[in-house]
This record gives sequence, C-alpha cells and structure tokens, in this order.
Amino acid sequence: MPLFDTLPGTVSIYEVSPRDGLQNEAVTVPTTRKIRLIEALCASGLSRIEITSFVSPKWVPQLADGDAIAAHTPSAEGVVFSALCPNARGLKRALDSGIKEIAVFISASETHNRKNVNSTIEDTLEGFRSVIAPAVEAGLRVRGYVSCVWGCPYEGEIDTEDALRIARELLNQGCYEISLGDTIGAGTPLQTRRILEAFFAEFSPGQLAMHMHDTRGTALANILVGLEMGIRTFDASVGGLGGCPYAPGAAGNVATEDLVFMLHGMGVETGIDLAKLHVAGQVAAAVVGHPLAGKVHQAGVRSLPG
Amino acid sequence: MPLFDTLPGTVSIYEVSPRDGLQNEAVTVPTTRKIRLIEALCASGLSRIEITSFVSPKWVPQLADGDAIAAHTPSAEGVVFSALCPNARGLKRALDSGIKEIAVFISASETHNRKNVNSTIEDTLEGFRSVIAPAVEAGLRVRGYVSCVWGCPYEGEIDTEDALRIARELLNQGCYEISLGDTIGAGTPLQTRRILEAFFAEFSPGQLAMHMHDTRGTALANILVGLEMGIRTFDASVGGLGGCPYAPGAAGNVATEDLVFMLHGMGVETGIDLAKLHVAGQVAAAVVGHPLAGKVHQAGVRSLPG
Repeated sequence: MPLFDTLPGTVSIYEVSPRDGLQNEAVTVPTTRKIRLIEALCASGLSRIEITSFVSPKWVPQLADGDAIAAHTPSAEGVVFSALCPNARGLKRALDSGIKEIAVFISASETHNRKNVNSTIEDTLEGFRSVIAPAVEAGLRVRGYVSCVWGCPYEGEIDTEDALRIARELLNQGCYEISLGDTIGAGTPLQTRRILEAFFAEFSPGQLAMHMHDTRGTALANILVGLEMGIRTFDASVGGLGGCPYAPGAAGNVATEDLVFMLHGMGVETGIDLAKLHVAGQVAAAVVGHPLAGKVHQAGVRSLPG
Repeated sequence: MPLFDTLPGTVSIYEVSPRDGLQNEAVTVPTTRKIRLIEALCASGLSRIEITSFVSPKWVPQLADGDAIAAHTPSAEGVVFSALCPNARGLKRALDSGIKEIAVFISASETHNRKNVNSTIEDTLEGFRSVIAPAVEAGLRVRGYVSCVWGCPYEGEIDTEDALRIARELLNQGCYEISLGDTIGAGTPLQTRRILEAFFAEFSPGQLAMHMHDTRGTALANILVGLEMGIRTFDASVGGLGGCPYAPGAAGNVATEDLVFMLHGMGVETGIDLAKLHVAGQVAAAVVGHPLAGKVHQAGVRSLPG
C-alpha cells in the first residue's frame, strides 16, 4: 500500500482560537481572560498563534481590544503571534503594536465575500495593495486566507479556479502562505484531493496551509488527504473554540487537540505537549463559559490507553 | 497521486444503534420507542440493522426486551435484522424469534474480555462452539465482533496477533464476517494501515468490517484508510447514539450520518437517504431524551451547500 510512505517528521500547527474562535462566540470575553488563554496556548508548545484582529470594533466587537491584546501578549520565545488585518488602518495598528505577522482574509465566493467584508472579490484584492506590500516592506510576514474553497453557504459549490486566481494574486502581492479554508465544513476527501491537485499544479506545498472545519465530522479525514499529498501546515482551534457561524450549536474549526492526537499517533511531531494543550482547552472552555465540541477535549487525555 | 483511484461504487453500512447504542445509554428505553427508532432506520434505506441482544437481562437491563423487539420489528423488504447472542441460551431465543442473523462478541484484550463477559478469551471462544456452528446449521448467518483491536482501556496497546488468532477461530467456527472494533476510539490512521495489512495478509477484505469509535475524532480518518485499503463494510450508530462507556460525555460509535455524508461526498453509494437518516437521528435523540454527538446530526442536512 502506498499510504503514508512519505509522512513528514513534523508539521506546523497554526492556532486560531484567540481570533477565529473568539470572533464566532456570542459573548465578548474580557481582555485579561483572552491573555490567559494565549498564555495557556503558549505553554502547550504552540509556536504560531493568531491572537486578535485589527478590524473595526463596529464589525467585530468581540475583538475590539486588539491593541491591548497585542500589547499585553507576552513575547514567548520561538512563538510567532499574528493578527488579522483587513485594511491600511488595521496595518497601522499592527505596526504600532509591534506584531511580526499579519493575515488578510478573502473569500473564493463572491456572495460570501460581499456578506463578510461588504466588498467584491476584485475590490478586496485591490484594497490589499495598501496592506500586503506595505506590511512586507515594513518587515512583517503576511499570511493570506482564502475561505469557502470547499463550498459556500450561499452559492454551494465554488469553482477551484476562482480560489486559484485569488491565491495567485495574494502570493504575487507578497503573502508567504495561503491558508485554504473549508469555511462551512462541507469538504470530503475526494474533493480535497481534487482541490489540492489543482493547487499543486501551480504552487508548492510549502506555500499552502489547510484551514478545515469539522462541521460534518470530516476535518481530520480531509487533513489526512492533505498530509498525504504534501501539506505541512494546518490551522486549528483549541477545543474547537468558535463553533460554526452558519449552524448554531454545530462544530466549526477542527479542534487542535484532535489534530495533534491524530498526528502524534502517526509519529508526526508538532512540538506540542498534548496534555498541556488539553489544559489550554479547559481554559478556553472556562473563558467562554460553555463546553466545547472538540472530541479529545470531551474525552480527556487521561483516558488514553497505555 | 494514488489516493482514491480504486474507490468502490457502493459500501455496506451495518447499523448498531438499537443494540450497541442503547446498551450504552444510562436509561432503559421503552420497547415501543425502540421500535419507532428501528422503523425510522429502515425508512432511511439502511439494510443491515442490529436490533437487540439476547443476553441476560441481569447483564444488560437496557435490552431485556429482546424477544419483544424481535417479535414486533417489521420485516422490511431487503433489510437484514441481527441480534447479539452471547451463548446457547441466547441462540435459543434467537431461533424462537425467527431472526435471520446473529452476532457474537469477544475482545482481543484478555482484561477487557474478562471485565466484559466474565470469561477468558479461550473460554469465550470455546463457548461459541455451542452458538456459531449450531446457528449456521439452523440457517442463520453469524457475525463476529472482535473489540479492542486498536487498544484496550485497561491494557493499552493490543498485539494484532491476538486479534488475528481470534478472527481466525471465529471464521473457522462459521462466522461470515469479522467486525474489527476500535472500542475506545484511540485509533490513528497509520496504526489502521498496519492492523489492516496484518489482516489482509490472511483474510480477504470481504471477510472484514470496521467498527470505529469517534472518541478522539479520528473515526472517519481511520475509515478512509480502510476504504482505501479495501474494506467494504462499516459499522455505525445513528447520531453517534451510545456514547463512550469509558469516558462519560465523550463520543462513542461513529455517527452514521457523518459516515454517509463522507461516502456520498466521494461518490460512494450506500443505498441510504441522508435526509431520512437525519430524521432517524432526531428520533434517536428523542428516544433517549438528550442531544447526540454526531456532527451532521448537530449541523443538520439543510445547511448543506447548494
């Protein structure tokens, strides 16, 4: 069998719970609690964490304290903090904060992009010219998110060519990595293979990451396909924090603990201590005040065999 | 990429919710409600359903009404009903009920088998001589479960040789199919490949099924490996009914809806109508009176794109 004959020794986990997770929570969490969560994530060995967003508080009141979060987040050794940055105003806040990495967000679905950022795909890409290149010139790394690659809550199937075109433009503008998102968690493994084949025809695996939602339970199966095909960076949210904005009560981002459990079980290292990550998941649940959907989060790490 | 170049047109789903699911529920569900669940499962297009157990009511009070369940279950066309049958006394009840298929259950872990059926593996296999062969002689089909193949809650890792030896003996005694169980949901994909390679060295894929638990979120990823390697029968429980007996509140059996969603998304047919299966999951939740862990169950099928 050819399966898993070329597994990597390590992969990189990009933790999104303080931004993507908390952004999708109904409650606004106090700044001190957010910092407590970020500290717990750092203690687990996570080395890439998206801590907040420099977006207008009108749009995302949950993350209105972005400047304070960036100011108070401890500069843990070997950890790269990142913040979502939609426009030039956000970039100014990012530069003032001293953060070393930012991320930009766009959808491969025209309808989803309009509903999400009130702008066409073309206008959004054009607007990124005042964010990405200036950020790179200022010495920042810029990550690009392309959402709805596996499907759109409004349009259904999305032509992979649309996602490819956007990824191409983001890389041309200066992004170092494109995170491909299954925003509604509708992806299945054969589709994942087809999407990644289209991307690998043009880009190298090192330019790509996967951002999978577990809304229908397929996140790890899709990630397994990506791992087998060469993807080496996966986004995740501790405990599955954040849920699904399109189906109240349903799961959103794949839980970091589940992903790490699967990878470690295959001998693929992440630099993360699963027991400490489980503690961070407990902190995340306490911070938002309700149980989270992650499976290892619910089962616990003490119940592991052996 | 060699991934999914040999996907089957169809696979067989073996539904375990009325037996394995309800057996792990704290409450005992009234007989009429169980029959309502079985009817909803039949209506979804499921063609193999384990409806009850002919075990002593002392051991499993939740399934004490096995005879009534078998008597009142409608003989839906094209549907094979099965019942767990631990011993000769159970076989007598099965024969009286007119059911066409039974299943026997044994663990690959000595400690788990003792705790589960109060008997050594050797004695359990010996006892099956008064069940399997007589059942086959009476015209019944007999399915064999081997649990804890991916790990044991008491012993940790289990030597695959032990599972192989038991499977060999069950097939020799007359079982038509062996369902290999990840009873604690601790399996990961590379391990699944190794276990199945060991089984395929001796048995044909048609003799094997996978019974995966989703306790740590890896069930579909493991099933994907099995599918890729040739397994064509998968056990599942609607809504994920039953939970995990070793971690209260955690997920147990993989949810049938999640499995069917993944398979249909890959063009692999099951004969099941996912919308009707989702209805059966709602019936299951109503029958036990609490929400279930299945992801599609929680997200709903209306939120599917397109």
